[in-house]
Amino acid sequence: MIEPRLLKGFRDYLPASMLQKKKLIYKLESIFEKFGFVPIDTPALEYSEILLGKGGGDTEKQIYRFLDHGNRDVALRFDLTVPLARFVSLNYDKLIFPFKCSHIGPVWRGENTQKGRYREFYQCDFDILGSNSIESDIEILLIIKAGLESINVGDFRINVNNRKILNAMLKKLNLMDKSVEILRVIDKIHKIGIEKVLKELVDGLSIEKVLADEIIDSLNIKNADDRYKGELLNDEIFEAISKLRTKLGNEHSECINELELIFSTFKKMNILKYFSYNPSVTRGLDYYTGTVFESFILNKKDYGSICSGGRYDNLIGLYSKNVIIGVGASFGLDRIFSMIEPDNQATARSSNTDILIFNLNSSDFAEYQLIAGKLRNLGINAEVYVDKKKIQNQFAFAEKKSIDYVLFAGEEEIKNNAYNIKNIKTNEEKKSLKIEDIAKIIGK
Amino acid sequence: MIEPRLLKGFRDYLPASMLQKKKLIYKLESIFEKFGFVPIDTPALEYSEILLGKGGGDTEKQIYRFLDHGNRDVALRFDLTVPLARFVSLNYDKLIFPFKCSHIGPVWRGENTQKGRYREFYQCDFDILGSNSIESDIEILLIIKAGLESINVGDFRINVNNRKILNAMLKKLNLMDKSVEILRVIDKIHKIGIEKVLKELVDGLSIEKVLADEIIDSLNIKNADDRYKGELLNDEIFEAISKLRTKLGNEHSECINELELIFSTFKKMNILKYFSYNPSVTRGLDYYTGTVFESFILNKKDYGSICSGGRYDNLIGLYSKNVIIGVGASFGLDRIFSMIEPDNQATARSSNTDILIFNLNSSDFAEYQLIAGKLRNLGINAEVYVDKKKIQNQFAFAEKKSIDYVLFAGEEEIKNNAYNIKNIKTNEEKKSLKIEDIAKIIGK
Repeated sequence: MIEPRLLKGFRDYLPASMLQKKKLIYKLESIFEKFGFVPIDTPALEYSEILLGKGGGDTEKQIYRFLDHGNRDVALRFDLTVPLARFVSLNYDKLIFPFKCSHIGPVWRGENTQKGRYREFYQCDFDILGSNSIESDIEILLIIKAGLESINVGDFRINVNNRKILNAMLKKLNLMDKSVEILRVIDKIHKIGIEKVLKELVDGLSIEKVLADEIIDSLNIKNADDRYKGELLNDEIFEAISKLRTKLGNEHSECINELELIFSTFKKMNILKYFSYNPSVTRGLDYYTGTVFESFILNKKDYGSICSGGRYDNLIGLYSKNVIIGVGASFGLDRIFSMIEPDNQATARSSNTDILIFNLNSSDFAEYQLIAGKLRNLGINAEVYVDKKKIQNQFAFAEKKSIDYVLFAGEEEIKNNAYNIKNIKTNEEKKSLKIEDIAKIIGK
Repeated sequence: MIEPRLLKGFRDYLPASMLQKKKLIYKLESIFEKFGFVPIDTPALEYSEILLGKGGGDTEKQIYRFLDHGNRDVALRFDLTVPLARFVSLNYDKLIFPFKCSHIGPVWRGENTQKGRYREFYQCDFDILGSNSIESDIEILLIIKAGLESINVGDFRINVNNRKILNAMLKKLNLMDKSVEILRVIDKIHKIGIEKVLKELVDGLSIEKVLADEIIDSLNIKNADDRYKGELLNDEIFEAISKLRTKLGNEHSECINELELIFSTFKKMNILKYFSYNPSVTRGLDYYTGTVFESFILNKKDYGSICSGGRYDNLIGLYSKNVIIGVGASFGLDRIFSMIEPDNQATARSSNTDILIFNLNSSDFAEYQLIAGKLRNLGINAEVYVDKKKIQNQFAFAEKKSIDYVLFAGEEEIKNNAYNIKNIKTNEEKKSLKIEDIAKIIGK
């Protein structure tokens, strides 16, 4: 006998969890579709050379990489961004630009596991490629809002910033040559605190204390413990933008206009309350060049951002001479899922069955299936009990599977095409019902 | 620059294909749900020891196997049957039996690629575990019928047999000790022909010519070129069953009763025409022990069986002391998909967008999104053009993306909350329409 066990960092999905996960994915998919986004997919395995790109860092350590049967150096994808870049460069001529696409699928990282984090997890990316209009940025943000509304895990706020503004300031301070490093340091402010960021700027990057102070000051962050402290809301946003204009002057008006256009659009749409301008949001990844954003569930801050992204100037440069600009984001499906996953089978429905048809007499099985078929045609999930078991076992089965209704079809009922049902939660029984009436009672 | 390329045997899914594939999966998923089946999932990576089980054969050659960062001997799953067995033994206490489950996901095999076959492909399994009732077999067959109807690729027939009948005959011929080998040889009859099967039985397995002839005779197959030649239809089925009773006698009446119950149920349900009794169907896999089945699209025989399966007596024996009987089948998603996949972008819709809202004036983008939002609430997939491009470019975009309708909202229209639309296929224009009227015209 071989001991049945899972690899460390991997998990099974039992029905109750899988039903929840599918529902979550389905909700996001329908939003993408509603906004005109089209789905794509890429293989789990690619050449390591392609996935690692310039390589280095955590990726190289965490990627599942091996030689295949043909001695090719291959690896499992560790995100969906790199495969998207490869996909777009390879299929460039077949795509319709601006290319609005969504990509949902598993990725693999051999990282140290923590509670609720796995070595196989789902990503859910969506991007608009090939347009430099601020409308694209706005649309991505609208989808985040629609997505967070639909998954219904609590009030949320989407924090928006534009890297160009920080860069404009760094330019004014003559620090542009250290821009990438500075942004990386700032991105850690909520994790390591203001003092340590100051220290890294001054000691690590040799920036004058007075300039480092000015950088920190611009982030509008007084207390790094609170992820939201950098947030500006409602009218504060437009006041801050106004101040930026004075501070940065005309030569940087473009990025300020972009930022203003985003918020004035949301104001016109009467949805400004879902968004904030947060100067301390910079995102760690180097490829972002403009608008960047993170989103939080207000009473679940400790989960971190559950949908982040930004604008990039050249995603596919590594694989193509074409330049592809774009803007995109990614829902953290597993973080969201860890907020909603049922703790145990008892608290969550472990099926979507609406009614169980009892198997009272094997020789009537055709009749049971005919009844079930009619109910299914009316949109009801109707299950027939397939085993030969006592009636109390069949009741217990319905209860365990969280099926509310059971249907009895004895000789008499079958003859009259009218059946008895029972709601096993309320114990209410109804007799001699036609199929249509049963469907109405179940409420579909 | 890194050359963007795919691994041999792997593929991208462009939007038109991905939309089709998702639709196909979605159709099958809703059927599983309608019948009360619950979804499960297992990891792509498992211990090689578990996936290889007793090992040997093609599996060992084709499996993607490597050492992970923790020096564990791991592999990518090559089917969904072995993971199901491991899943059931590990989660036994948490499952509700009879356990009706479905499992859809990618599997990987490093086999030599042929046209339309890939090293990464999707399987779609569904099983009823923990019941030995013939009702379970019937229900699996009903789902195959419902699935093949819903995917709508042509008339189909589901071929049914019972291995016990063949075994009963082998018992009568005193050949039971060679049963596994004989079934394996017979399974190849449609590929290699009657003569070669006879030769393998006589020369390979040292079976007397007269007995080998009797085996072949029982398969009801005159011409191995035609996959359907073993089929018995309608009343022929019951005549053949009647003859079997005489031939095999009382001691084997159980399996004959099972077979008869299957077909008499379908007759009662008035769906017998979708099924045949085919004595030459045995399935190659050793673990089947009772009912076995294959299904074909009548005018696409060359694709082979697109949904096969059978009953097994002990799926999880390798991993558990519990005995789990069951019956299940698998839709060949990629075979089915190769029947329906669009040959090129031009012949298939490359989006599900119903209407494109033109971006006439950037400063009205909020209005466009508000209009889109109202349409989306009415179930319409409404896309806003995000780029700043000339109107003819926006028309071309709609055309390329197969979007039938475009919407114009100029200053006047926005003031009146009434918009102009055009069907770009028929060139028909309608002016000053309210949102509700637009939704009605689009027909949702």
